Amino acid sequence: MESKRIAAEKAAAYIRAGMIVGLGTGSTAYWAIQKIGKNVKEGLSIQAVATSVHSENLAKELGIPVLSISEVDSIDLTIDGADEVDDSWNLIKGGGGALLREKIVASMSKELIIIVDESKKVNQLGKFPLPVEIVQFGNEVTQKRLGKLGCVPQLRMSEDQAFLTDNGNYIVDCHFEHIIQPHELNTTINMIPGVVDNGLFIKLATRVIVGYNDGSVVEL
Amino acid sequence: MESKRIAAEKAAAYIRAGMIVGLGTGSTAYWAIQKIGKNVKEGLSIQAVATSVHSENLAKELGIPVLSISEVDSIDLTIDGADEVDDSWNLIKGGGGALLREKIVASMSKELIIIVDESKKVNQLGKFPLPVEIVQFGNEVTQKRLGKLGCVPQLRMSEDQAFLTDNGNYIVDCHFEHIIQPHELNTTINMIPGVVDNGLFIKLATRVIVGYNDGSVVEL
Repeated sequence: MESKRIAAEKAAAYIRAGMIVGLGTGSTAYWAIQKIGKNVKEGLSIQAVATSVHSENLAKELGIPVLSISEVDSIDLTIDGADEVDDSWNLIKGGGGALLREKIVASMSKELIIIVDESKKVNQLGKFPLPVEIVQFGNEVTQKRLGKLGCVPQLRMSEDQAFLTDNGNYIVDCHFEHIIQPHELNTTINMIPGVVDNGLFIKLATRVIVGYNDGSVVEL
Repeated sequence: MESKRIAAEKAAAYIRAGMIVGLGTGSTAYWAIQKIGKNVKEGLSIQAVATSVHSENLAKELGIPVLSISEVDSIDLTIDGADEVDDSWNLIKGGGGALLREKIVASMSKELIIIVDESKKVNQLGKFPLPVEIVQFGNEVTQKRLGKLGCVPQLRMSEDQAFLTDNGNYIVDCHFEHIIQPHELNTTINMIPGVVDNGLFIKLATRVIVGYNDGSVVEL
């Protein structure tokens, strides 16, 4: 918890007055939103765009002015977590289920700061199951096609029902174990009819900040 | 009308008893469904999977047994229309708004028979605006990105509201005029975050049947 908080606070220090800031989703982004809320209360003037209904509600509670994505052409800086970060700063994201909105916001951002605790830093992606957002129609066949790429696909559940994203789609968690060519896999997965997007973020991160359990924080 | 009907009837002649048949959507597929319904009334035993709520309802009215897509692993033969067919049998589809379900069904089909009237046969794709299905979140930015690919993007409307697909997404009609490399464009478009899929069907058609206004019909 402490390692996530210190990484989040270091990232928040990059925010300047007047910026449009993208707010990530998940347990590390939570700490960034908390810190931004504190800074706004102390007089920092920014506007935010959220990657999930959950983060939007949290931001509003903390008094952060929130814009709809339809009101902005680009975002100055986004702070978000990740489930895995490799040595080339490629990411797996979407454990929280917001991968599509996170990817849209990341792709609109001049700067994307990824904040993680040390457990998320890996040499190779794939130990963390890759989330893939798919449409409901034909999902059984889409899952089988994902399985043919060398993973064990698992429909994400929420209690007894299939989990639904903010866009009304399903998530399939794909257990690859080893992702050797993330760039190629990203394209292969997205070209399957029925796939909306997947949690591989290739060449989108511009800074990575890692918080350690001993209280130290390192910007890679 | 007559040219669509005769092409549709020639395609329906490929259906054999026991097949699982994919039903397309639109004004030409309409005639195929009518003919299949007639054959079923006369004793042909098949089961169908529909590419839209509209085609599903039509099939049921005509007494065609309809399966949910979740009940089938593959489809023997799909009959569907197209908005444009080029010399390599690449297609633009989705004028009717059902492109994603049509693409999922087409990709599950051992055979895809495309039926068109002569006006749809072109040397090069692109005169017909290419439909792209996109998620609502961030759609303004997604539309701008599509525009940067060299088209004029236009959000499809239904009366005063944005048209919604059966999957709850928007359609952007992209006026390219000339699509020189359809295969590459298909990938480029689908890799834009927020794009679900687009109406380029590359190497999916296995037969193309063209109906002419003079009453003749030619299988290419």
